[in-house]
Amino acid sequence: MLVMGIDPGLTRCGVGVVEGAPGRPLGLVHVSVVRTGPDEPIEQRLLGVERGIEALMDELRPDAVAVERVFAQHNVRTVMGTAQAAGIAMLAAARRGLPVALHTPSEAKAAVTGNGRADKAQVTMMVTRLLRLETAPKPADAADALALAICHVWRGGAQTRLARAQAQARSHAQARARLGAPRTGGLGQ
Amino acid sequence: MLVMGIDPGLTRCGVGVVEGAPGRPLGLVHVSVVRTGPDEPIEQRLLGVERGIEALMDELRPDAVAVERVFAQHNVRTVMGTAQAAGIAMLAAARRGLPVALHTPSEAKAAVTGNGRADKAQVTMMVTRLLRLETAPKPADAADALALAICHVWRGGAQTRLARAQAQARSHAQARARLGAPRTGGLGQ
Repeated sequence: MLVMGIDPGLTRCGVGVVEGAPGRPLGLVHVSVVRTGPDEPIEQRLLGVERGIEALMDELRPDAVAVERVFAQHNVRTVMGTAQAAGIAMLAAARRGLPVALHTPSEAKAAVTGNGRADKAQVTMMVTRLLRLETAPKPADAADALALAICHVWRGGAQTRLARAQAQARSHAQARARLGAPRTGGLGQ
Repeated sequence: MLVMGIDPGLTRCGVGVVEGAPGRPLGLVHVSVVRTGPDEPIEQRLLGVERGIEALMDELRPDAVAVERVFAQHNVRTVMGTAQAAGIAMLAAARRGLPVALHTPSEAKAAVTGNGRADKAQVTMMVTRLLRLETAPKPADAADALALAICHVWRGGAQTRLARAQAQARSHAQARARLGAPRTGGLGQ
């Protein structure tokens, strides 16, 4: 599974693409930052973010897109631009029929470091380690986008395993019911 | 000049198109609301808003787009969706090369009623009167989009008049300088 993580922003929009599946090593496919100038008119900045994200989606063809969930209470000065960049990322994915997931910054941090309040250095170190890179990914401000993609591989994976386990449990129960076997236990039978 | 006013929102996005020019009566061209269901996934809602706005832009071909400026401090629960809908409106305009302007709710209210804190009923009444309609425009929740469009016709008009007046003042001054006429006065000469 190829997952594109997007850390939304108008000045810097981090994009990281990771290949992975539950129980298998992760691989770095792409990391970059889409930038727009703070002096450009807002509508030109939105257009720049859209073009940057769409070009990467069309080139890298991810199977799913994970976008950082933006909260209104954080950093009021920049939150509107961040929300709009996140909206553009979701829109670009939806236009391509790609599944979209939102993860909070804490979920992404907890996924890669085990601590939802880990600092930037710790997240970068763990992203570097998990992707088996020799040096930290560059640009440095795209590490959050990679953490988001890794978070999605694992959470998506956990959901897939859970769904599979539930399906197996149901089919075992049905098999037992058909055979008249007891529903409880199984060991020492 | 055909101006499209957009009152952004995910559940209801008001769109009003007005024809007008400084010193000439205003005309209603279009008013409607683009709606998306609160139970749809966010990316599908964004896509719905985009499709609705783009279809209206392509059908009505406005010369300029005026979008309500969204503030982070207002209504934290819905502000992210409002910001994203506003971003989509600006993006759709920018893709078509249309000039985009942002006006605050107070600017729009002040433009049509003279009072930046006018209530909804007053805004609707003045929009109805200014557009010379027999009854209030429907749907009722699109009156703000029309007020925004009217605000833009007049502010854009005022800016045009100011620029024209300044250009005339410059050329008069130059003519006087060439003729050796006094720069002050003119009456009773």
